[in-house]
Amino acid sequence: MFGGCRAHPLLTDLYQFTMAYGYWKCGREQDEAVFELFFRKNPLGGEFTVFAGLQDCLSFLSTFCFSQEDVGFLRSVLPADVEPGFYSYLLNISASDVTLRAVPEGSVVFPQVALLELEGPLAILQILETPLLTLVNYASLVATNAARFRLAAGTDRRLLEIGLRRAQGPDGGLSASRYSYIGGFDGTSNVLAGKMYDIPLFGSLAHSYITSFTSMSEVKVQELATASGERPTADFPSLCREWLARVCCFLQVPEHQTNPSEFAAFVSYASGAPRNFVGLLDTYNVMRSGMPNFCAVALALNQLGYTARGLRLDSGDLGWQSLQIRRTLQSCADRFGVPSFSSVPIIISNDITVKDLIELQHKPNAVDSVGVGTHLVTCSSQTSLGCVYKLTQVNGKARIKLTEDKDKTTLPGKKRAYRLFGPDGSPFLDLLMQDTESVPRAGEEIRCHALHGGKGSLAVTASRVEPLHHIYYQHGQVTRDSPSAAEIKKFVQESLSDLPPQHKLLQEAVPYQVAVSAMLYALLCEFTEERVSQP
Amino acid sequence: MFGGCRAHPLLTDLYQFTMAYGYWKCGREQDEAVFELFFRKNPLGGEFTVFAGLQDCLSFLSTFCFSQEDVGFLRSVLPADVEPGFYSYLLNISASDVTLRAVPEGSVVFPQVALLELEGPLAILQILETPLLTLVNYASLVATNAARFRLAAGTDRRLLEIGLRRAQGPDGGLSASRYSYIGGFDGTSNVLAGKMYDIPLFGSLAHSYITSFTSMSEVKVQELATASGERPTADFPSLCREWLARVCCFLQVPEHQTNPSEFAAFVSYASGAPRNFVGLLDTYNVMRSGMPNFCAVALALNQLGYTARGLRLDSGDLGWQSLQIRRTLQSCADRFGVPSFSSVPIIISNDITVKDLIELQHKPNAVDSVGVGTHLVTCSSQTSLGCVYKLTQVNGKARIKLTEDKDKTTLPGKKRAYRLFGPDGSPFLDLLMQDTESVPRAGEEIRCHALHGGKGSLAVTASRVEPLHHIYYQHGQVTRDSPSAAEIKKFVQESLSDLPPQHKLLQEAVPYQVAVSAMLYALLCEFTEERVSQP
Repeated sequence: MFGGCRAHPLLTDLYQFTMAYGYWKCGREQDEAVFELFFRKNPLGGEFTVFAGLQDCLSFLSTFCFSQEDVGFLRSVLPADVEPGFYSYLLNISASDVTLRAVPEGSVVFPQVALLELEGPLAILQILETPLLTLVNYASLVATNAARFRLAAGTDRRLLEIGLRRAQGPDGGLSASRYSYIGGFDGTSNVLAGKMYDIPLFGSLAHSYITSFTSMSEVKVQELATASGERPTADFPSLCREWLARVCCFLQVPEHQTNPSEFAAFVSYASGAPRNFVGLLDTYNVMRSGMPNFCAVALALNQLGYTARGLRLDSGDLGWQSLQIRRTLQSCADRFGVPSFSSVPIIISNDITVKDLIELQHKPNAVDSVGVGTHLVTCSSQTSLGCVYKLTQVNGKARIKLTEDKDKTTLPGKKRAYRLFGPDGSPFLDLLMQDTESVPRAGEEIRCHALHGGKGSLAVTASRVEPLHHIYYQHGQVTRDSPSAAEIKKFVQESLSDLPPQHKLLQEAVPYQVAVSAMLYALLCEFTEERVSQP
Repeated sequence: MFGGCRAHPLLTDLYQFTMAYGYWKCGREQDEAVFELFFRKNPLGGEFTVFAGLQDCLSFLSTFCFSQEDVGFLRSVLPADVEPGFYSYLLNISASDVTLRAVPEGSVVFPQVALLELEGPLAILQILETPLLTLVNYASLVATNAARFRLAAGTDRRLLEIGLRRAQGPDGGLSASRYSYIGGFDGTSNVLAGKMYDIPLFGSLAHSYITSFTSMSEVKVQELATASGERPTADFPSLCREWLARVCCFLQVPEHQTNPSEFAAFVSYASGAPRNFVGLLDTYNVMRSGMPNFCAVALALNQLGYTARGLRLDSGDLGWQSLQIRRTLQSCADRFGVPSFSSVPIIISNDITVKDLIELQHKPNAVDSVGVGTHLVTCSSQTSLGCVYKLTQVNGKARIKLTEDKDKTTLPGKKRAYRLFGPDGSPFLDLLMQDTESVPRAGEEIRCHALHGGKGSLAVTASRVEPLHHIYYQHGQVTRDSPSAAEIKKFVQESLSDLPPQHKLLQEAVPYQVAVSAMLYALLCEFTEERVSQP
């Protein structure tokens, strides 16, 4: 139901078919066209983007065709005077004449450089526009967002994606989990995403579990075996009660102030999952109820040879509370002679943003893991990457869109893109050239024009030059292996670690340079002057 | 692939299964529970919400069960010490013991009032949490967003959803189209959504179509029959050329300044779809190229008995340009004796927000239709509704979550909700009561406590009282008919038109009152005092 082919061939805008009909009617449907899919501005206030969504595009192309039913529906919505031959044409098309060049999935990419370049029959490439944009836009946005959360959190803290309930419907939630993982998260709570993309799963417990209990009378399990299985089973609820008395006495919290429903919930949860016990501390009062109850149950587990997996905080001042909690864990560890107890992982959640993580980095805290939902999956600080898909060439002739809105002008012609690396091995410039130009060489001076901010012409020399695009689909076949989500995730971190730090700042980053070759610049001027001559 | 069952039973958070195991281990899995799904604050800066997603919840409940493969996967990710009996239990569950009460889909709803109330076995209701939230959260958010666009646009202007390429993946795009229509849009560009939900489709053409042409030599179709079919076919390109000369002369635009590729694109598109010709005017220069080219082709079509369907503007100052264009259409209508030409619909697009529409309402313009994408489908001004799903009762006992964060405290117990209407037929208050209380009656004074803003107790008298919830699913069956998307859309507009205007203001609206009965207030105080007594 999900996965395999993620996009239905009718999941496109109606005008793609009316335009395809226009081409067909003129006999232009087979005109050899080149389209580029790119974005104009890095998202989320940053200066880099992580490219994702390529595998979905490849599975879409591999299965792209229209069924009788699809064409029957189109016939019912297109104008009555559309010629029947057009529907026969639609029934017979596929992507087998399409060549897809792309940047590898997980690459760090920059504005104006094509993520995908499609070459093939004009009408087919036109119809492919919307599905390809739909598959790349959100995937790349959320992967970039996840990469920013990762940069804000540092490398050691665990990042867990918990956004399913806030995503744009079921499939939005699947995409969110998949691309958050690729972008730098350690795991997800989304079971189906775990299954489909082999992403580590994790879970704790919810407030409703805790509030569902009223007292220990509901905790029916009495016996719990020791972890090693060597010693006899213990009366776990009684053991927990004993520990509660000891903990309350030590922490100087009156035992009657701890919430009995919370205690019962912890005891029942721990007895069911003694190797995976996680406490949720803020249902009633963190320090006067959640903490003593958690310590009691975790120390009872410890006595039987088990280790608590963590505790979660979901409200209040999370950084400050984590310190209080760590101190309490430390003193219990000392008092009760359980050294490992001091390092029980503290997990926080509650509408966490990149800004929250940056702030957390700048003040004392004892947070080990962060659960992120809404602001990750909905990309609330910028909800769209704004990829576009533009025609650059037809039948060997360069084309351009020269609107009055200068930012929307496109770069004409079929192009090649190269990434230039400095002597330190870091990339410093992406170079766009006409595809007829010879490959730029390391050690040779290259004259070019910066596209953003840079003034006029540049002369640069690279220590290493790499082509940015590879052929991924040709003659109806996917031509390169599909890496796993974990492999793409690794590649994202490698791409990012190569990128000089000034481009990765989360605020006020320095733009990475993208430039056009002198020849491409000349072509652009030619088109622009044509227009200038039409005042 | 899409539709029918929108959510896979594993599309849930892992902790739902660990909690379900905790219940099962205590023998509590069949405990009779009540959960409510509600939100705490109206979204998007407004004071109302449109409830949507119910049909998806019903199809999810109707098909809810776990396959051998699902359970096999769970076995691989849950702790090794989970007892095998739990997996047999999972293989045998369904939603047949669940009763779902809900507000009708399309209703205007307010904070704290349950959208869904689920009654049934504790463990099953726990597992259902995430999918139900996923199905309601975004659907209601985007329906509310669409309703706000509709309020901002006024009733006459056509609103067209064009957001597929910016949505959260394929299914995000389908949900966006469906719930935008339900919330008040007139149609979508999304072909699959049109097919699946019977939503009117529309389309125009893209800049790439225009830039794909270079000259009239590419327009191979020569003949076009008249609309009535009575007169012989005409050489359409020549006719368009003649009209271009006349139009340029009249508009005092030098003909060589009009862009020949744009002209060729319009001629080819019109000859393919003479009854559906729409021009896109801003590829080169709106007034010196787009407009004369459009007028020439549209007037040539008119001579053959066809009427142009519209023109689209996608950049620049859209309101101001629409006036210029309307004036030009008007003068062409007068000059060439074609009265209908003055009213060719003007369609605008380009990152339109609710704020843009409000501004448009306040200045002169001649816009007939608006295409909205990104800001509609991604709900960029607030990306999540923040619905929650809370336990309110177990085995007849009221439950509450009493966190230190007061806003997160829940209303305890199984409840009934009523909407109170004034003598003018408008609703003025939603009343929550314990389910054991007798139904409030029209004409009788009702004592209650306002939940938001209001101070202390209220005494209100309603002219009419209506229960807010109905049973939609019981004994494994959907118990009410499923209205079509068009019917729900109509119901949204009726619900909204009943709502007094002060609650519908797009900025600084007055909150609608939600209150709890004296008895429910007493229960809430009882719980709160219990907690206060634990300092």
